[in-house]
Amino acid sequence: MATLKQIIERNDTKGGKVLDLFIQALILISLVSFTFETMPDLPEVWVHRLRVIEIFCVIVFTVEYILRIVVADRPFRFIFSLFGIFDLLAILPFYLTTGLDLRSLRSFRFLRIVQLFKLSRYNRAMHRLIRAMRLIKEEFLLFFFITVILIYFSAIGIYYLESHAQPEQFRSVFESLWWAVSTLTTVGYGDIYPVTTGGKIFTYFILLLGLAIVAIPTGLVSSALAEVRREDYLAELERKARAEADLKEDLLHK
Amino acid sequence: MATLKQIIERNDTKGGKVLDLFIQALILISLVSFTFETMPDLPEVWVHRLRVIEIFCVIVFTVEYILRIVVADRPFRFIFSLFGIFDLLAILPFYLTTGLDLRSLRSFRFLRIVQLFKLSRYNRAMHRLIRAMRLIKEEFLLFFFITVILIYFSAIGIYYLESHAQPEQFRSVFESLWWAVSTLTTVGYGDIYPVTTGGKIFTYFILLLGLAIVAIPTGLVSSALAEVRREDYLAELERKARAEADLKEDLLHK
Amino acid sequence: MATLKQIIERNDTKGGKVLDLFIQALILISLVSFTFETMPDLPEVWVHRLRVIEIFCVIVFTVEYILRIVVADRPFRFIFSLFGIFDLLAILPFYLTTGLDLRSLRSFRFLRIVQLFKLSRYNRAMHRLIRAMRLIKEEFLLFFFITVILIYFSAIGIYYLESHAQPEQFRSVFESLWWAVSTLTTVGYGDIYPVTTGGKIFTYFILLLGLAIVAIPTGLVSSALAEVRREDYLAELERKARAEADLKEDLLHK
Amino acid sequence: MATLKQIIERNDTKGGKVLDLFIQALILISLVSFTFETMPDLPEVWVHRLRVIEIFCVIVFTVEYILRIVVADRPFRFIFSLFGIFDLLAILPFYLTTGLDLRSLRSFRFLRIVQLFKLSRYNRAMHRLIRAMRLIKEEFLLFFFITVILIYFSAIGIYYLESHAQPEQFRSVFESLWWAVSTLTTVGYGDIYPVTTGGKIFTYFILLLGLAIVAIPTGLVSSALAEVRREDYLAELERKARAEADLKEDLLHK
Repeated sequence: MATLKQIIERNDTKGGKVLDLFIQALILISLVSFTFETMPDLPEVWVHRLRVIEIFCVIVFTVEYILRIVVADRPFRFIFSLFGIFDLLAILPFYLTTGLDLRSLRSFRFLRIVQLFKLSRYNRAMHRLIRAMRLIKEEFLLFFFITVILIYFSAIGIYYLESHAQPEQFRSVFESLWWAVSTLTTVGYGDIYPVTTGGKIFTYFILLLGLAIVAIPTGLVSSALAEVRREDYLAELERKARAEADLKEDLLHK
Repeated sequence: MATLKQIIERNDTKGGKVLDLFIQALILISLVSFTFETMPDLPEVWVHRLRVIEIFCVIVFTVEYILRIVVADRPFRFIFSLFGIFDLLAILPFYLTTGLDLRSLRSFRFLRIVQLFKLSRYNRAMHRLIRAMRLIKEEFLLFFFITVILIYFSAIGIYYLESHAQPEQFRSVFESLWWAVSTLTTVGYGDIYPVTTGGKIFTYFILLLGLAIVAIPTGLVSSALAEVRREDYLAELERKARAEADLKEDLLHK
Repeated sequence: MATLKQIIERNDTKGGKVLDLFIQALILISLVSFTFETMPDLPEVWVHRLRVIEIFCVIVFTVEYILRIVVADRPFRFIFSLFGIFDLLAILPFYLTTGLDLRSLRSFRFLRIVQLFKLSRYNRAMHRLIRAMRLIKEEFLLFFFITVILIYFSAIGIYYLESHAQPEQFRSVFESLWWAVSTLTTVGYGDIYPVTTGGKIFTYFILLLGLAIVAIPTGLVSSALAEVRREDYLAELERKARAEADLKEDLLHK
Repeated sequence: MATLKQIIERNDTKGGKVLDLFIQALILISLVSFTFETMPDLPEVWVHRLRVIEIFCVIVFTVEYILRIVVADRPFRFIFSLFGIFDLLAILPFYLTTGLDLRSLRSFRFLRIVQLFKLSRYNRAMHRLIRAMRLIKEEFLLFFFITVILIYFSAIGIYYLESHAQPEQFRSVFESLWWAVSTLTTVGYGDIYPVTTGGKIFTYFILLLGLAIVAIPTGLVSSALAEVRREDYLAELERKARAEADLKEDLLHK
């Protein structure tokens, strides 16, 4: 049982790596097949094939889920962990929807996508990104806050400037909020935009302000990443200096 | 009176925190209700409910405003401070518009949104952002200046290249300015764009230049944030070194 | 003559500052009036007023131009300098077009806008930006080069994927180039976009690549600005250290 | 033969530089002529001229290709190198398509564009960019991965929120993926966008998340470039210190 436990729970054994890759491949296949299923005019034969693939995936995921509970030292801890809940949500809709038409629930299987993150080779990069994010957590929340206020302010401003000229487009502050979001993120779908001179001049200043605001998260991320890199660099220097000092001491004692 | 003063003016006491959170919640409720009020086809019952919410909010804000004046050491200083003026502007329109139809003035209440910034936990992040902004103030003004010139230059260029092919869209330099703004910020609504070959080639070069220009604020912000972080780091190092030196001296004297 | 020379050529005397501000204000007025002139349905009275403003501006600019030649130590050097040529181009069209209808040439006056850069207070920020730009000149040219290749590659790719489905929109590689430019800069006017599955998948990969490419100028600018700031910081440290050393030496010699 | 070998394989001799510039000019001409060829309503005389240019280019490229094989020390190594394969792909379609209508294959000639990178003067900048890219390779892959997951997640979310209101636009997850790509990269063509309140609110949060995600590559690039610059700076310092030390030692020995 010890070996099975190792294969399932760790990915440093050969068996564990193979299982992980197999499960990850199955997750991808399951997601691709789900994507194809949503096509409205799919030929009957493909509907059948996708159904077979789905049943196979769900069976494997179910077996894996049960095995993980069985081999876990503390089963309930796994069941109520994030991975445990995601694993359950990925298979449960299949059993619930055999009778009912709750197909949309099946999209929960995409939650298993997070398991792809287990790929160990990106651990270091991931770790660095997370450390950088932790450094700027407060600034990020503040930025989020400032952005929300700017968006609300823009929406109220454009509502008073445009609602008379375009009562259909800028019917209420809700529509204006949609405009503010799609404009300040520079998406600009083109379904809603100012036509009055006042609205255009207002948009001009809002956009200039927006450019500066959008510059903040990038600046935060890059300064945080630079700091993480410097920390790693200094830690490496210190490690080397200590190793050298140890070596010298060893030589002196001999 | 001392306790009431502390509750109102400071947020380090328990009562002060509760009051602040209550006022901030009320600001949010007031803004949400204002947003709903602008909906054109709101049922009568909701119009009434929103009116009740509004009256309640304004009463609380008025009481708070008067209390703040009463407990202030120098009342006039508070009245003419930014927060004081914003607080007044948030409640005044209600009393002015009971007779008249000046509903649009009520949007001033959104000015109270700045009070949300009082949240003390973001003080450090805010302080760092402000220090970074101060470092690059001059460069930012220069960037703003260069952007304005580039936008004006683009507008004149596109006007001569497109006004013959699209006399309606590019009627004057004003319309061209609107095009220049929405293009250089990469919003691109799609309501106005060049159709001639000359105009397209011109847009191409303007956009490449624009990419470089848009890169400047981000670069400024991130280099300033990096400098602020380094300053904090060095200040921390110095503080530690001094503390250590003090400790050594203490030991020597004993 | 010496005083007149100083007033015209330098901006550190009081007279020089007044003259500079006057000329800069006139440049702005001249540009605003030019912008209004392009409006198609301008009332007769305003056409007349703008004409008067224009004549006044051109006379002042002409007098200034002649005076600059007169007071210059080496007149020809001024005439063929960038400022000299721009000054001439700003007034020449007026004299040329009194008979002919070459109104479009008058837009050359906007070249005088560069004189606004003379504002001395931004000199330090300007200087820092220029130093930063010089540091990354080569990388910038390389980036420009890579961008051009990526745009050309995208245009050829989308041409083969879309020209069959949309023969009107993607008629030749020229139209595809326009699509590539407006897509990779994320403007996205919406006048031309892929509709086939192949074209959309191609766009997807091009855009992901584009995001990485667009990140390069920002990264270049911010790393260069950080270096300029560090250099300034080190230079300041050195200056302080030297001043201290000089002080010590002075004390020793006494 | 030695001289011919040097001219062809190296660009530090005068002959080599001339040949390189000639070939690069021909590549540009060939690409421009290919671009013009795709125009649908080209006059007969120009079709003929472009054909002549093409034949000339292909002949020169063929001669160059053969010469490169002949002078190479290990011909097969050149043939199967990237440059060798690109050179072959640039000329092969011409010979294959004289009989058949495989004109689209001719676009392979654009692969020769990579030879423009041989320009030696950008070597240093190129080298720095590549070093920076290598530093962040892992983080970049991780970012790519996170982006793909975010796009997939957005597509599934918008599919369930919008497919009922716009069954034509959001027919399947494929269409939703296209929307997710064009929205998260902030292109926003305007051919597909949410219209329901749920879809708009979802888009709002996805875009805010997207802004943060888009900030990552820029942050990565700029922190990596800053590190490369610091490394260069330190290497330069060390080089100087060593040179000084060598000089001192030399002086001591004399």
